[in-house]
Amino acid sequence: MSFNITILGSASAKPTVNRHPSSQVVNFHEQHYLIDAGEGCQQQMVRAGINPLKIRAVFISHLHGDHLYGLFPLISTMGLCGRKTALQIFAPAPFGEILENHLRYFDREIPYPVEWVEVRTTEHALLFENKTLEVWSIPLRHRVPCAGFLFREKQPPLNVDKFKITKYGLSIAEITTAKRGEDIVREEEIIPNGEVTYRPYAPRSYAYLSDTNFSAKAATLCHGVDLMYHEATYSAEEQRNARDRGHSTSTDAAKAALKAEARRLVIGHYSSRYKDEQVLVDEARTLFAETYPAVEGETFFIEKRTDRP
Amino acid sequence: MSFNITILGSASAKPTVNRHPSSQVVNFHEQHYLIDAGEGCQQQMVRAGINPLKIRAVFISHLHGDHLYGLFPLISTMGLCGRKTALQIFAPAPFGEILENHLRYFDREIPYPVEWVEVRTTEHALLFENKTLEVWSIPLRHRVPCAGFLFREKQPPLNVDKFKITKYGLSIAEITTAKRGEDIVREEEIIPNGEVTYRPYAPRSYAYLSDTNFSAKAATLCHGVDLMYHEATYSAEEQRNARDRGHSTSTDAAKAALKAEARRLVIGHYSSRYKDEQVLVDEARTLFAETYPAVEGETFFIEKRTDRP
Repeated sequence: MSFNITILGSASAKPTVNRHPSSQVVNFHEQHYLIDAGEGCQQQMVRAGINPLKIRAVFISHLHGDHLYGLFPLISTMGLCGRKTALQIFAPAPFGEILENHLRYFDREIPYPVEWVEVRTTEHALLFENKTLEVWSIPLRHRVPCAGFLFREKQPPLNVDKFKITKYGLSIAEITTAKRGEDIVREEEIIPNGEVTYRPYAPRSYAYLSDTNFSAKAATLCHGVDLMYHEATYSAEEQRNARDRGHSTSTDAAKAALKAEARRLVIGHYSSRYKDEQVLVDEARTLFAETYPAVEGETFFIEKRTDRP
Repeated sequence: MSFNITILGSASAKPTVNRHPSSQVVNFHEQHYLIDAGEGCQQQMVRAGINPLKIRAVFISHLHGDHLYGLFPLISTMGLCGRKTALQIFAPAPFGEILENHLRYFDREIPYPVEWVEVRTTEHALLFENKTLEVWSIPLRHRVPCAGFLFREKQPPLNVDKFKITKYGLSIAEITTAKRGEDIVREEEIIPNGEVTYRPYAPRSYAYLSDTNFSAKAATLCHGVDLMYHEATYSAEEQRNARDRGHSTSTDAAKAALKAEARRLVIGHYSSRYKDEQVLVDEARTLFAETYPAVEGETFFIEKRTDRP
């Protein structure tokens, strides 16, 4: 029941020797989701040991090239490799027009359908759902319409406490009832569901917030998140520059993590002027100790938490 | 008076960990020209110590993504960095439509003009010319319209032989006449131009032939070329596969170099199945000894040749 995030790109728009533009892969229960697709993301996947063909869906925060140019080569490669499964791409308008042009000139005959799902960047809406996962949009504050993404694990199924099975002499039928979340009703007594069941672990969550100015509202929508990625293009002394360009400083990122009461913060989208991102990490840590740098090829694991001993 | 070629990408379409798709930079007299623009070419330039802003013109052989996807991020970066100089892009139709779409959605406000010049892929035509250089199209045989490019140095200006100046007692006016290529006409005699002048070195040339089946006609158009880049996607045993897909084997590349009487051959555009390209080089060398592999980041220098001692 994995839930982890691999960083493919940690840079902002200008190319550097060692950093790629924005891109990440979320591995949730062995299903892979791509968030943003900066140039080179398919090669970065191969380097990180992730098969690009395994991407189930793509989430694009906004239509700036440094978050998108790597998607088109990826679409081509998937076709070249004979993908059959539909690929869903969640992105703001007018991505549909861009996709249509791409398919017309480059991938007219790919063997799988590519489906665009519009992300309305002013709404906090459920975009994607399966049995175990929900993905929500988070409105962000950038120069162009932009949304973050909140990956929320659904409540895991209830477990029945072994000691309570013995204590109450639960039958197989009663255990099934308890697992459904219902009370056990006997002739002589009612055993409340909470008395015999527990959640094996708390549902986990991951928030991706880039590109954006500091937004208290966005942070609030991610309240209690296990891991928050927040862009930190600039250091605190570039506050004004950051604000004018629709970006954040390391301090803004830390403030967002504090506001959200996040457990851990990952910063990235570094301006090319910072050859070493440690200055940004150190700055953020003065406000939020659990800050870590986005490093390409590295994976952040979100472990299960349980209150039970 | 440099004339050298730096390999940015050596792979064919499928991404690998270590190889990038097709792209090269020709440095001719410190003017930089990009040939093909596979994904990641701007980062590869930075790695090779070539400033992406210095590219004067771009030559695109054909409209397959692995030769083109890296151009759009490069156009954006040039804008971001404040380029003012026009960028000429030589490419087959309908590149103009693709460019127009790109500019509409991604680079509406870049501070420099981007100009498309159509390459007619069935013609051997002069595409570009300045005082010292000509670039010609070479029709190729691929699955889609495709042209190679022949970079030809113009004849360098004539030098006047110092010993002949003394021997004939040439005046300044007579030296100027000789440098113009004219005979020296005196009352008592005519000194033929060839008697007192010489070319300081033979004009140099570079041919880029990718993607293509073997083409005797293309090879003939490059006759006497100093350096030929020819694609060698497959080894000789994949001859049929190569032919069906509009590609070449290492043997095809060697045959083209032989036919052209090229001085040296560089092969590239390796299929991802060849982890080590040495097998392709070895195969080509059985026919054409002066074969070298395209290795990313490496530069091939074309030195001046002179017949004078």
